[in-house]
Amino acid sequence: VNISLHPVTGLGAIVPGDDLGALLAEAMRASNFSLVAGDVVVVCQKVVSKAEGRVVDLTAVTPGERATTFAGEYEKDPALIELVLREATEILRMTGGHLITATGPGFICANAGIDRSNQAGPGEVTLLPCDADLSARVLRETLKAAFGVELAVVVSDTFGRPWRLGQIDVAIGAAGLAVLDDHAGRTDWSGRVLEHTVIAVADQLAAAAGLAMAKGEGVPAVVVRGFHYSEGSVGAAALVRPRDEDLFR
Amino acid sequence: VNISLHPVTGLGAIVPGDDLGALLAEAMRASNFSLVAGDVVVVCQKVVSKAEGRVVDLTAVTPGERATTFAGEYEKDPALIELVLREATEILRMTGGHLITATGPGFICANAGIDRSNQAGPGEVTLLPCDADLSARVLRETLKAAFGVELAVVVSDTFGRPWRLGQIDVAIGAAGLAVLDDHAGRTDWSGRVLEHTVIAVADQLAAAAGLAMAKGEGVPAVVVRGFHYSEGSVGAAALVRPRDEDLFR
Repeated sequence: VNISLHPVTGLGAIVPGDDLGALLAEAMRASNFSLVAGDVVVVCQKVVSKAEGRVVDLTAVTPGERATTFAGEYEKDPALIELVLREATEILRMTGGHLITATGPGFICANAGIDRSNQAGPGEVTLLPCDADLSARVLRETLKAAFGVELAVVVSDTFGRPWRLGQIDVAIGAAGLAVLDDHAGRTDWSGRVLEHTVIAVADQLAAAAGLAMAKGEGVPAVVVRGFHYSEGSVGAAALVRPRDEDLFR
Repeated sequence: VNISLHPVTGLGAIVPGDDLGALLAEAMRASNFSLVAGDVVVVCQKVVSKAEGRVVDLTAVTPGERATTFAGEYEKDPALIELVLREATEILRMTGGHLITATGPGFICANAGIDRSNQAGPGEVTLLPCDADLSARVLRETLKAAFGVELAVVVSDTFGRPWRLGQIDVAIGAAGLAVLDDHAGRTDWSGRVLEHTVIAVADQLAAAAGLAMAKGEGVPAVVVRGFHYSEGSVGAAALVRPRDEDLFR
């Protein structure tokens, strides 16, 4: 069985209060595309944040002393740094102009996931959804009702990572699928029993969808079809490695 | 344009000295599958290592004192630990039974990428290819000649990562494509200019292919079709973040 990636196009500009799930369903229908049972709809964080009103006008943010100092040192926007410090639950690194933070349920990324690209106005930025797993659950319910099929939803964002250059898309929200897939006891392609391997399925789905979003040409969502996921209900917050099991914090 | 993932099946057991590219071409032809221009063939490390003879019988490895001590402390196989220490160019963490190492051109992963699953015999393990970019180049030449089309090759392996649970597939070798795709100056889906974003395309391709390998049922390679990569010649070694730019080493 092959897996295919279907970009969703034709979604207009999203504004706070929009019913994103309904608009995605409408955009799919407008291009004669219907969801089928087992589809995974990967939706980029940006449109989710905008629909949820997680948009801030930087000109309305008054930077404090810490933000002003750091911003001055590295020629950054003090208002943006202030916002990052407010959104961060923890600062892992604040050096060389880089601000690596924990945010939300413990996701670690640059600038608390605050993004300047694709804003509504020149001074506007998007914050991560307050609870991207909840966002995914809401989107899933809307899309299930719209197409009458079982499906899963992943909310993705583009994160850097240590040790390797470049960014990849990861899951920050998920609903309807097991985000981690434990291969213990399964056999591999030669028929041998695998060692204990747990695949971060939601992250692999986000990265795959990223291939179809990568060119940045109007693809806020991608449908992954033909991937057999397991059911699950814990969400992407379960992908956060517990602090005391993390060798690199 | 949609992207599709085509698992390659029907590859027999691989032994040292096998011409892996020729055997993959044969397996594709046997299932009436032909490569077309622009395909990316993602091949799992395990079969590459086996074809290249990067297989070691643990019973023939004499562990030194450091390996014996660490193995005894955490109930590990001393011979395996010895081999990890030999393959590692650097030990990042050696604690709690975990051995996080740099290996090859600087890839950071557990146990220097040594893998016990899927071995030929009960005491056998596979090491990473000596130069997985060279492996990718050789596979690419063979597959290009076999099908008469331009294509790219990625050699993938399954790595853990800090901060997030579960493993994902990443590129350890690449040929024929730009492993990093710089979006600077491009517009995103709303027509705004993107901030400086560099996507680790080869890693996204590896992760996508991982979806079709994930169930561990005889899928040593996956063809990614319909993804428009840029040409490039630097290989996956270029994905290693330079040490002095890495905030987490």
